[in-house]
Amino acid sequence: MCEQQKQVKCKIGPSILNADLSNLEGACVKMLDCGADYLHLDVMDGHFVPNLTFGHPLVKCLRPKVPKAFFDMHMMVADPEQWIEPMADAGADQYTFHIEATKDAPTLARKIKEAGMKVGIGIKPGTPVESVMPYADLADMILVMTVEPGFGGQKFMADMMPKVKYLREKFPDMDIEVDGGVGLSTIDACAKAGANMIVSGSAVVKAEDPQSVISQLRESVVRAL
Amino acid sequence: MCEQQKQVKCKIGPSILNADLSNLEGACVKMLDCGADYLHLDVMDGHFVPNLTFGHPLVKCLRPKVPKAFFDMHMMVADPEQWIEPMADAGADQYTFHIEATKDAPTLARKIKEAGMKVGIGIKPGTPVESVMPYADLADMILVMTVEPGFGGQKFMADMMPKVKYLREKFPDMDIEVDGGVGLSTIDACAKAGANMIVSGSAVVKAEDPQSVISQLRESVVRAL
Repeated sequence: MCEQQKQVKCKIGPSILNADLSNLEGACVKMLDCGADYLHLDVMDGHFVPNLTFGHPLVKCLRPKVPKAFFDMHMMVADPEQWIEPMADAGADQYTFHIEATKDAPTLARKIKEAGMKVGIGIKPGTPVESVMPYADLADMILVMTVEPGFGGQKFMADMMPKVKYLREKFPDMDIEVDGGVGLSTIDACAKAGANMIVSGSAVVKAEDPQSVISQLRESVVRAL
Repeated sequence: MCEQQKQVKCKIGPSILNADLSNLEGACVKMLDCGADYLHLDVMDGHFVPNLTFGHPLVKCLRPKVPKAFFDMHMMVADPEQWIEPMADAGADQYTFHIEATKDAPTLARKIKEAGMKVGIGIKPGTPVESVMPYADLADMILVMTVEPGFGGQKFMADMMPKVKYLREKFPDMDIEVDGGVGLSTIDACAKAGANMIVSGSAVVKAEDPQSVISQLRESVVRAL
């Protein structure tokens, strides 16, 4: 009862999906230099989503280049069980799987923790927020997708904000992440709804001044917190 | 009857699977500077093989960095039909699918050609060479795997050489490629069997002097041709 309440922190995590993937090292170093709090790395296998990005071999090469960066692996894959060990070995910090991709979220979450990573659980736009509730206690973070996963540069779905608000009311101390179409024109909606982990792709990596965009995203969230 | 017989050419294509994937641009530029004739790019989706490398978004980023390089896409994927258009759009030159991954090789080959790419057909170690014969006329190249596909750094399987020899006897003008465990100690076997497109991974990219290794691989093949 006397425990001091934890306060969630604002964290801005650029998604490098629309960056120069042929030099991910350069793209990631630049984002960190511009003030990114973490890196949101989009893994797609062409089965869970109709796109194919990269997997753990690339993450393993990237790790020593940015040894202190927090890697939030967004696992848009059909069989998330398959990559837990390889991703932990590659140096991932958080393993965010999709609730739609597994039949056994508790076992998956346990294995992720046992492998030494934080647990993220993501829901697609068509998935009701209630579907994640039975597993929320197992998660360090819940990701509310604000576009259909698969591609960068899509339009933000404002009608996902009630999911964020619902989660924030239920879990004042939980990391809640939004991903998809988040930029300067949509950040206030995310911040007001209660998101504290902000994935921003094109809006940051394609900006002339990414540092300024990251700062402004942060200001909006800090204000709302 | 009087047609001048085409002669197959020796081409050395480094596989960048064991290179620094976080800076593929750098790895590819280096290989081309060291005398590579083409780049062998290993696409894995975690379904056809138990590894996940990269897909067309990365290839698209790489293309303008090495505009003249020939990209031989080794598609170790469960649904090779899926990536024809995206790979053509990304700038791939040759699309090598696995005979084991398709039920309709003729249609697949036709679509690859229609998309403006050359057609490669690959066979895994366990697949008899006869299985590719009905489709050989549709192919610009046949790839004989000399390791189980999925990972770099494996040991060369010399018992695949009869497949290469058989294909070379049947098709004197065809590009025949070997991939897996090919380096200075195994190139002579490949060359004598009749391979002219040589994929070499670790032996080249991990060499202190890749240029010298590429030269030596070439010498062995040219001698045998």
